[in-house]
Amino acid sequence: METIHQEFQVAYRYPVYFTEGVFESSNPVLVSTICADDDAENSGPHKLLCVLDEGVCQSRPELPQQVEAYCRAHPDLTLVRPPMMVPGGESVKNSSDYVELVQEAISEFGLCRHSYIVVAGGGALLDMVGYAAATAHRGVRLIRLPTTVLAQNDSGVGVKNSINAFGKKNFLGTFVPPHAVINDFDFLHSLSDRDWRSGMAEAVKVALIKDAAFFEFLEQHAKALANREPAPMRKLIHRCAELHLKHIGTAGDPFEKGSSRPLDFGHWSAHKLEQITQFRLRHGEAVAIGIALDTTYSRLTGMLPEADWRRTLDLLEALGFALYVPELDGPLSRCDPDSLLHGLTEFREHLGGRMTVMLLAAIGRGVETHYLEDEIIRNCIAELASAATAAGRRAV
Amino acid sequence: METIHQEFQVAYRYPVYFTEGVFESSNPVLVSTICADDDAENSGPHKLLCVLDEGVCQSRPELPQQVEAYCRAHPDLTLVRPPMMVPGGESVKNSSDYVELVQEAISEFGLCRHSYIVVAGGGALLDMVGYAAATAHRGVRLIRLPTTVLAQNDSGVGVKNSINAFGKKNFLGTFVPPHAVINDFDFLHSLSDRDWRSGMAEAVKVALIKDAAFFEFLEQHAKALANREPAPMRKLIHRCAELHLKHIGTAGDPFEKGSSRPLDFGHWSAHKLEQITQFRLRHGEAVAIGIALDTTYSRLTGMLPEADWRRTLDLLEALGFALYVPELDGPLSRCDPDSLLHGLTEFREHLGGRMTVMLLAAIGRGVETHYLEDEIIRNCIAELASAATAAGRRAV
Repeated sequence: METIHQEFQVAYRYPVYFTEGVFESSNPVLVSTICADDDAENSGPHKLLCVLDEGVCQSRPELPQQVEAYCRAHPDLTLVRPPMMVPGGESVKNSSDYVELVQEAISEFGLCRHSYIVVAGGGALLDMVGYAAATAHRGVRLIRLPTTVLAQNDSGVGVKNSINAFGKKNFLGTFVPPHAVINDFDFLHSLSDRDWRSGMAEAVKVALIKDAAFFEFLEQHAKALANREPAPMRKLIHRCAELHLKHIGTAGDPFEKGSSRPLDFGHWSAHKLEQITQFRLRHGEAVAIGIALDTTYSRLTGMLPEADWRRTLDLLEALGFALYVPELDGPLSRCDPDSLLHGLTEFREHLGGRMTVMLLAAIGRGVETHYLEDEIIRNCIAELASAATAAGRRAV
Repeated sequence: METIHQEFQVAYRYPVYFTEGVFESSNPVLVSTICADDDAENSGPHKLLCVLDEGVCQSRPELPQQVEAYCRAHPDLTLVRPPMMVPGGESVKNSSDYVELVQEAISEFGLCRHSYIVVAGGGALLDMVGYAAATAHRGVRLIRLPTTVLAQNDSGVGVKNSINAFGKKNFLGTFVPPHAVINDFDFLHSLSDRDWRSGMAEAVKVALIKDAAFFEFLEQHAKALANREPAPMRKLIHRCAELHLKHIGTAGDPFEKGSSRPLDFGHWSAHKLEQITQFRLRHGEAVAIGIALDTTYSRLTGMLPEADWRRTLDLLEALGFALYVPELDGPLSRCDPDSLLHGLTEFREHLGGRMTVMLLAAIGRGVETHYLEDEIIRNCIAELASAATAAGRRAV
């Protein structure tokens, strides 16, 4: 009997807003996003479950009340229960407990596919709640309010969610775009210096592989960025988010079916470094080291001019990143799960297909390779170690 | 700062094959599907995890060995472990235990997004394994080998997966198309008469809402179908799968973002009937009653000519379906979770948006409505009860 060939396309659209004071009653962004499609036949009130990062609420204890007041002020929104408070940070992804907590609330309060989950927090919390929202009823609408630099310019604007499982980072998850993202700059004021800085690593990353002018902007404002001046940080976040979204939207593989993954430049080692430092390193701190490592690799193999390599390491250091941790000097074997090199094995296994790693040909121009040599990686680590010794600087 | 509007499309393609003896070494369908995209840079051997329905293996005890022999005969396939045996039937969806078992095997044997999970079983097992495959690494390739009429002509060829949670059917799941579907007619020989019959309800459903000629075909061959003649059953499965796929591919909402759900004709009550009969009714048996109910509703409200109503009930009975169970006569309240009418509440909540139910204007022509009257539903039940008494026939 004749084979049936099924073929269709699914269109995705979502806005990324930039605002301040998202939960001030006079701020229209959230309510107008939720009511955007209302018409005579489909209208509010819309059910809304809110999940907040406990860490964020520690520095902004008025936040839960603000959320409740906002929903009271807008009769088209029905907050189904007081905001759920959930810890932030990687630990929230380490079991399915919190995912089930969110799914249970979705069930208990009768949310449907046209209801809304509004989550405010760092990247890890957004990942976890995103996974719960994507799987309950096969997908409840998710509005992300990223509260860190990293989440506002990178993970929080993308199409992925996840939790960790079987000791593997992001082992479980889905590709499901959010309904909307609202970047509220106010959330950044209460970040620690470490978290403020950490998120800038992804901006350096995307500038290096895609946008030399943006890299120059970062160089020019490195000191101001390190000193927490708001204006250049807003620019950094907007441009980084824009480049990230542009890649997802136009590079032809938004749900990563192929083997190419340019946005993961510097990440094969970063994911592993987070793990072998028992998450003492923040994701962005690990990415900064990963960028330094792969940029050094690019130089040592003759792909990247020395001047570009120097500028890259200088920028990372000017932003305040330390580019060496003792764990880099552990065993180097692709088969040893405790080894940095095992990161390459896990990277390929998680992404699938042919091993593909991004390197640099110039600032603003990434190139992909399918082979990395262990011996050269060893030399890269030695370079980073001696540079750190020379500078008297080591990472946390 | 300027809002960024993200917008992209994702293209999906998958084949649905019809074959016999899929695991005979000489049958090329499975191996050629897996190796279809091989080229100089991406080639085998391809890792493959196989999950088999224990019930299927009871009637075909040689199946696991056949799978192993098939993979040995094709060096491009690496079966990572002997086939996993998992119970079939709805119970496999009632906790996350089996999902975790499959995910753990994916982790343990190092499968990646380009590896394959091959699952042979009924609709419930396909749903469960599909959910595990869709979430591990954010999606491992899934090849479905549906072994029942219902799975071959309906659920197994579609884009959904799920498990039950919080007492709600299909509460957790995703929309993720399979890599391929292989309908092996041989699996149907060992079905019980109940399972053979049960799957035909979805064919009646899709014929009623979309294809009068197919309905006539079913009428003409009702006796042969009930007597398990293979030729008309092959035709039934092919046409039903084709209509199902055509709807998903061309009706503009493959991942069910809106409120319209024509393929769920007869299903608001069917899902609930399965539950309130403690799954004594097979899905298809419940769908047959659900079709009878909504067809009767269409007639009682003057939408559907009496002759079309009569033909529909006659066809369902000729195929061997009983159209009444005592549970239909339970309490009727939309707020009582034990009531059939609560099925309407759950149906809307699961699908989201405005309550939308398909009714019939004619054989081959469904129309949607947004209101059902409880009193008329009561009358429909009374009609089915008296028809059953008159015929001396009751469902299991």
